[in-house]
Amino acid sequence: MAKSRLEKQIEFAVEIDKLKEVERKTLLMSGVRSETSAEHSWHIALAALVLYEHARDKDLDLSRVLRMLLIHDLVEIDAGDTYRYDPVDNTVVKQKEKRAARRIFHLLPLDQGQEFFAVWEEFEAGATPEARFANALDRFLPVISSFMTEGLEWKKRGIRRGQVEERARPISEASPALFDCISRMIEEAVEKGFLRP
Amino acid sequence: MAKSRLEKQIEFAVEIDKLKEVERKTLLMSGVRSETSAEHSWHIALAALVLYEHARDKDLDLSRVLRMLLIHDLVEIDAGDTYRYDPVDNTVVKQKEKRAARRIFHLLPLDQGQEFFAVWEEFEAGATPEARFANALDRFLPVISSFMTEGLEWKKRGIRRGQVEERARPISEASPALFDCISRMIEEAVEKGFLRP
Repeated sequence: MAKSRLEKQIEFAVEIDKLKEVERKTLLMSGVRSETSAEHSWHIALAALVLYEHARDKDLDLSRVLRMLLIHDLVEIDAGDTYRYDPVDNTVVKQKEKRAARRIFHLLPLDQGQEFFAVWEEFEAGATPEARFANALDRFLPVISSFMTEGLEWKKRGIRRGQVEERARPISEASPALFDCISRMIEEAVEKGFLRP
Repeated sequence: MAKSRLEKQIEFAVEIDKLKEVERKTLLMSGVRSETSAEHSWHIALAALVLYEHARDKDLDLSRVLRMLLIHDLVEIDAGDTYRYDPVDNTVVKQKEKRAARRIFHLLPLDQGQEFFAVWEEFEAGATPEARFANALDRFLPVISSFMTEGLEWKKRGIRRGQVEERARPISEASPALFDCISRMIEEAVEKGFLRP
C-alpha cells in the first residue's frame, strides 16, 4: 500500500533524529564536549531570530533564513561534518552532500522534498541575501564559541589568525556590523593568546 | 559604558549555549543516550516546518510557531527539564520558569527581550492556534521517540497507556490528523508490549 503524506513525513522526522549523533569539532562554550550538528542548527536558527536586524539587506525574508538554517546540516547525516579549517577536496564533499540531500529529502512527499531540496541548494549557492546571511551566521557563531573557550579548539588544532580571518571574510558582505564585531574578537583573541598570530 | 544592542544580543547568544547541557528524559531514537533540550528544540522546529499542513487552522502563521518552538525551552537553563509524567507541583515549576524567562530575556535589548518574553508566554498559555499547534508538536514527537526505542523510556519508568493518552489529548484540538496518528501509535505500542496497558 502506498504511504500517505503523513507517513512519509513521519519517516523523515524519524530519519533526521540522526543529526543529534553527528559530532562537530566546535566545542560547547563551557568546553565540556563537542556540540552536535542538531544543537548547532538550533543555536544558529535562534541567533538568526536575534540578529537579523544587522543584515545588510533590510528586506530579508527571515522565515526563509530560518528554513535554511534548520535544514542546512541534514546532509551531514550521511556525509559527516567537515571541519572548516581542514584541507579537503571540496568537489568530493559537495558530491557526497548532494547525494545525501537527494536521499534524505526524497523521504518526504514529492512536492515537499523538492521544496526542501531547493532551500538547501539556495543555502549552498549563497547567492541570495537570505543565503548570504544564513551563511554568515554559520561562520559567526563558531568564532564566538572558540573565543568563549579561550581558543581551546584553535590551540588543539594549531589554527592561525589568517585562517580564521579568511573564513570570516564573507560575513562582511552579509552584515558589516557582524563582520566588525568578529574582526574585533579575532584581534582580542590574538592579544590574549587564544589564537596564533 | 553602556552595552550596545549587538553586545547584548551576543551575551544572549552565549548564555543560551547552556541549553545544550540540559538533558531530557526522552532518548534519541537510536536509544544510545538522552537528547538535550537544544536538540529537541531543533527537531520540533523542523517538524513544524514539515507538518504544519496538518494543523486544524489553515491560516496558521508558521513563522510565529517557529519562533515559539526555538525559544520555548530556554527557561530550562535555570529551571531544568520537568519529566512530563512526573507528579510535580505545577505552580512551583511555573514560578521557576517565569523567573528564568525574566532573567534570560532580560539579557536582550529591552524591546527584543519584551517581544521574546511575550512569545514565550503565548506558548505557555496555549490559547492561540499557533501556540496550540506548537504545544501539540511538543507532545507528539516524544511519543514517536518512545515508540522508536520500543518503549525503552516508558518501560524504565513504568509508564502506562492512560498517562500517554492523557498527555496526548490536547493534540486533537490542534490537529485531528496528528492525533489520529498518535492514537494508532499508542494502540500498536500496547499490542507490541512497548507500553503497559
